[in-house]
Amino acid sequence: MQVGFLGLGTMGLPMAANLVKAGYRVRAWNRSQEPVARVAALGAEPAAAPAEAAEGAEVLIAMLADDEASRDVLLTQGVLEALARGAVLVNMATVSVAFTRDLAAEHKARGLFYVAAPVLGRVNVAEAGQLNILAAGDATQLDRVQPLFDVLGQKTWRFGDRPEQAAAVKLAANFMIASAIETMAEAATLASGHGVAKAAFLEMLTSTIFAAPPYKGYGAAIAEERFEPAGFKLSLGLKDVRLALAAADAVNVPLPFAGVLRDNHLDALAHGEGHLDWAALSRVAERRAAQK
Amino acid sequence: MQVGFLGLGTMGLPMAANLVKAGYRVRAWNRSQEPVARVAALGAEPAAAPAEAAEGAEVLIAMLADDEASRDVLLTQGVLEALARGAVLVNMATVSVAFTRDLAAEHKARGLFYVAAPVLGRVNVAEAGQLNILAAGDATQLDRVQPLFDVLGQKTWRFGDRPEQAAAVKLAANFMIASAIETMAEAATLASGHGVAKAAFLEMLTSTIFAAPPYKGYGAAIAEERFEPAGFKLSLGLKDVRLALAAADAVNVPLPFAGVLRDNHLDALAHGEGHLDWAALSRVAERRAAQK
Amino acid sequence: MQVGFLGLGTMGLPMAANLVKAGYRVRAWNRSQEPVARVAALGAEPAAAPAEAAEGAEVLIAMLADDEASRDVLLTQGVLEALARGAVLVNMATVSVAFTRDLAAEHKARGLFYVAAPVLGRVNVAEAGQLNILAAGDATQLDRVQPLFDVLGQKTWRFGDRPEQAAAVKLAANFMIASAIETMAEAATLASGHGVAKAAFLEMLTSTIFAAPPYKGYGAAIAEERFEPAGFKLSLGLKDVRLALAAADAVNVPLPFAGVLRDNHLDALAHGEGHLDWAALSRVAERRAAQK
Amino acid sequence: MQVGFLGLGTMGLPMAANLVKAGYRVRAWNRSQEPVARVAALGAEPAAAPAEAAEGAEVLIAMLADDEASRDVLLTQGVLEALARGAVLVNMATVSVAFTRDLAAEHKARGLFYVAAPVLGRVNVAEAGQLNILAAGDATQLDRVQPLFDVLGQKTWRFGDRPEQAAAVKLAANFMIASAIETMAEAATLASGHGVAKAAFLEMLTSTIFAAPPYKGYGAAIAEERFEPAGFKLSLGLKDVRLALAAADAVNVPLPFAGVLRDNHLDALAHGEGHLDWAALSRVAERRAAQK
Repeated sequence: MQVGFLGLGTMGLPMAANLVKAGYRVRAWNRSQEPVARVAALGAEPAAAPAEAAEGAEVLIAMLADDEASRDVLLTQGVLEALARGAVLVNMATVSVAFTRDLAAEHKARGLFYVAAPVLGRVNVAEAGQLNILAAGDATQLDRVQPLFDVLGQKTWRFGDRPEQAAAVKLAANFMIASAIETMAEAATLASGHGVAKAAFLEMLTSTIFAAPPYKGYGAAIAEERFEPAGFKLSLGLKDVRLALAAADAVNVPLPFAGVLRDNHLDALAHGEGHLDWAALSRVAERRAAQK
Repeated sequence: MQVGFLGLGTMGLPMAANLVKAGYRVRAWNRSQEPVARVAALGAEPAAAPAEAAEGAEVLIAMLADDEASRDVLLTQGVLEALARGAVLVNMATVSVAFTRDLAAEHKARGLFYVAAPVLGRVNVAEAGQLNILAAGDATQLDRVQPLFDVLGQKTWRFGDRPEQAAAVKLAANFMIASAIETMAEAATLASGHGVAKAAFLEMLTSTIFAAPPYKGYGAAIAEERFEPAGFKLSLGLKDVRLALAAADAVNVPLPFAGVLRDNHLDALAHGEGHLDWAALSRVAERRAAQK
Repeated sequence: MQVGFLGLGTMGLPMAANLVKAGYRVRAWNRSQEPVARVAALGAEPAAAPAEAAEGAEVLIAMLADDEASRDVLLTQGVLEALARGAVLVNMATVSVAFTRDLAAEHKARGLFYVAAPVLGRVNVAEAGQLNILAAGDATQLDRVQPLFDVLGQKTWRFGDRPEQAAAVKLAANFMIASAIETMAEAATLASGHGVAKAAFLEMLTSTIFAAPPYKGYGAAIAEERFEPAGFKLSLGLKDVRLALAAADAVNVPLPFAGVLRDNHLDALAHGEGHLDWAALSRVAERRAAQK
Repeated sequence: MQVGFLGLGTMGLPMAANLVKAGYRVRAWNRSQEPVARVAALGAEPAAAPAEAAEGAEVLIAMLADDEASRDVLLTQGVLEALARGAVLVNMATVSVAFTRDLAAEHKARGLFYVAAPVLGRVNVAEAGQLNILAAGDATQLDRVQPLFDVLGQKTWRFGDRPEQAAAVKLAANFMIASAIETMAEAATLASGHGVAKAAFLEMLTSTIFAAPPYKGYGAAIAEERFEPAGFKLSLGLKDVRLALAAADAVNVPLPFAGVLRDNHLDALAHGEGHLDWAALSRVAERRAAQK
């Protein structure tokens, strides 16, 4: 099975590498050349342009930054034209529900298949092939690409036959991460207002009833005020909150926590903190309480 | 060491029982008689009135329902008068910061000591002696009662020398639990709006990045719409949200998530859902999106 | 008809003066002596203590700062004991619904009548006898004191036979004023973010579709950043927002705008702005957008 | 001066009619023919297509429903191509800041001028030529079209030389109207919770300190529960709230009241109330408090 791979960022690179290591014939493209050289060194075939990665591929995996990059790469550079009729595009990036719907329709019109399969897990999880894969699309197509998912992840969760269902699940999950950060920020500021050290407070909670990865990871960063280098930028967090709000808006779902999140992210951006790690959302709560 | 124990509710009963089993001489009181008989059967001495439990006790533990019950039992029935000078009252209930401060002052004025030590953990955790104990107060007094804490809990976390610090930590923790429930409610409603089953969505998240007790427990209840019998009533959840807001108000800390929580709990109460389990907060999100 | 008057603050003084000028026999008390001397100069009888103002009065008007001052003056200094059976206390201050209910019950138990009649209007309106009076209580008693209301106000609005109904109306009205200020703050910050001068924006709106007193008054203060001296302190505004939230809580009414208001007032207090005019709430919106 | 006019809806029709009556040569187009016939009967020249209205016009006024309609009519039907170099397009519709910016750039690139001039006022105000016109754009162009504004409105307010400034002001104004409705809804629900009739409460406030058009108009509709026929549909109100949020997002301005508004509008839409008058937003507050 020939696999095309578009987007060798921090997540895409280890994912493509794992496919190569598992024996798949992978033709990979990336905007910048350095990551292409790295997977090529492992045995992947370098592609000079997105369409070149698509040509002859039975499965084309896309792991691009966002809606804009995905639209640019997938729709304006001859990718769909290069795919053979019957090929399947597996979009593993976090993109909007609306764009997912458009893209799925576009594929259908061209006799192509489209599967959405965003992932849960950071770089180290991707490297270990232990991602959780959130998939939606035609069941036959999901079966077809399952062997690839088995290489990339520890488990594939299927959420329906419409690709936007997986997009919605991923955005809802990221909204939950943002909420966890904000919750810790508010709670720690409350504790701090009564003279309890943020670090002691957060260490206790993230070692006991909230010993889950988003709490442990972001909680430690908040406790240590360690916001650089950013694992995931606050400005990207805002982008995901906006997408969750848009996805909710489309189906008339109020999302009051997301409204608070949106405002607090904007507060952070207004104060020049968009480049910091998502954990820096905690600065907003502190600033509002004049604890900084 | 003679230990008095006031309040043998679902949490107090196993805690008192554990102290008896550990060999402490415990004199216990409860408003209703049945739980008193149960600890007496294990070897505790029954007390007919709160003051009787206090008499001669070196340490008096209180585990009463709330501010009102605590105020009634501790301040209007001769308890402090019955305690010997130098005795220490250990309040393990969840009560307000303001009441904690008042109570601590009252003890000091009478030559008594006051330690706040609310706990994290449900009944089964209390039974196993595996509570997390959130303590604050004079360090010497904390050392003095540490052997008791070692029987009741797996770990004692100290947050300062002012009892209200532990009260604030406990309220901040409960606020975090309420936030986790609301977050799941909103996220699941968003997913559901896109045709993803709430149960599938929540099972995935609470098995992966949010595999922490509050998410797993309340998430399963939301997924199964299992709100009776209530493990912890929604109306009690509102009480704790109010206390967190009051604690934040006292130190000028905005708490926007708690504001949302307050409104949604009131929405639930207005719809006659206060007696349901805290997980029923999810009904508010569903109702607002007309998914019910 | 002999009238007692308790509380000669900025509002109480001109109100009492108007009653004297209208020919009523007024016996007035105030915590500080200077205002007492001023109404005495107009013909009022000075009272050395609250109970002295109450003695022999058919109607006792109270215009005290808040719940605390009202409780202190009315319930701990022999006032109710001094009133003759059948006398009516008319409370024109802004106090909580819960306190109003308690006070009404206390009066009833003593064979006294209690009417709540808070007012809309600032000092100049009080001086002109043009207040809007928001009254609730037994209809016969309202009829009895109506001649006094006719001196003090341009119109009396009756809201029911339970005094707390007038208290709730007054708190709801003050909540609406706070919302108007916050709305202007947010809208002006939005306009300002696009390079439109706040003053130009607010002048336009408060001269056109929002040409109502709270908008014109607070809008001008926001436009000119004129926050001292405070006409009505931001910290008192927070007190009223808290009372509105408590009144809503008591009847299970979510109040999301009030939740936002509460947080923004706390943000202001945390930044040392509680002593400024209520219009300074606008600083919070500006600060969050880093426009300051 | 030849004037083109695009969009003869409830607002556009009386505006175009007033220009005809004032002696201007107006060539008018509308999607449906009936309104065209009506202005033609007054002396306007009917245009069969948007580009026909643009041809030869020195000033082209657009009063189209929203971004989408404006984009469709102005950018896909040869309008800009039909305008003579140096002509000015005056967009009086409520559209987004982003679209305004794009449109202004598009005009500049073609040697055309673009002025944004949305209005405040309902149909009867438009008929009377008493609109408030919120204008922004190049000062020379504003001077050039001022005579037309003098026919249409009682006053023109200038907010800067960038058209998006007027768009931002208009969106901020509509946000303030939405906030006024929500405020009344919450306050009336609070009063109602204490047994005060909504109508009595709102009548008092909108006759006294809130006697401004949005309060009086929407307040009366809330009091009488008169939501059909819709003067301005709730679903269009949501559209404007979304545009205000987007305008704020673009310049990093948190807008917490707008977040609440967004959720409550979605709640209304979820319950099938989008076609009702904007005042029906009050139903959300009532429903949440189970007063319906």
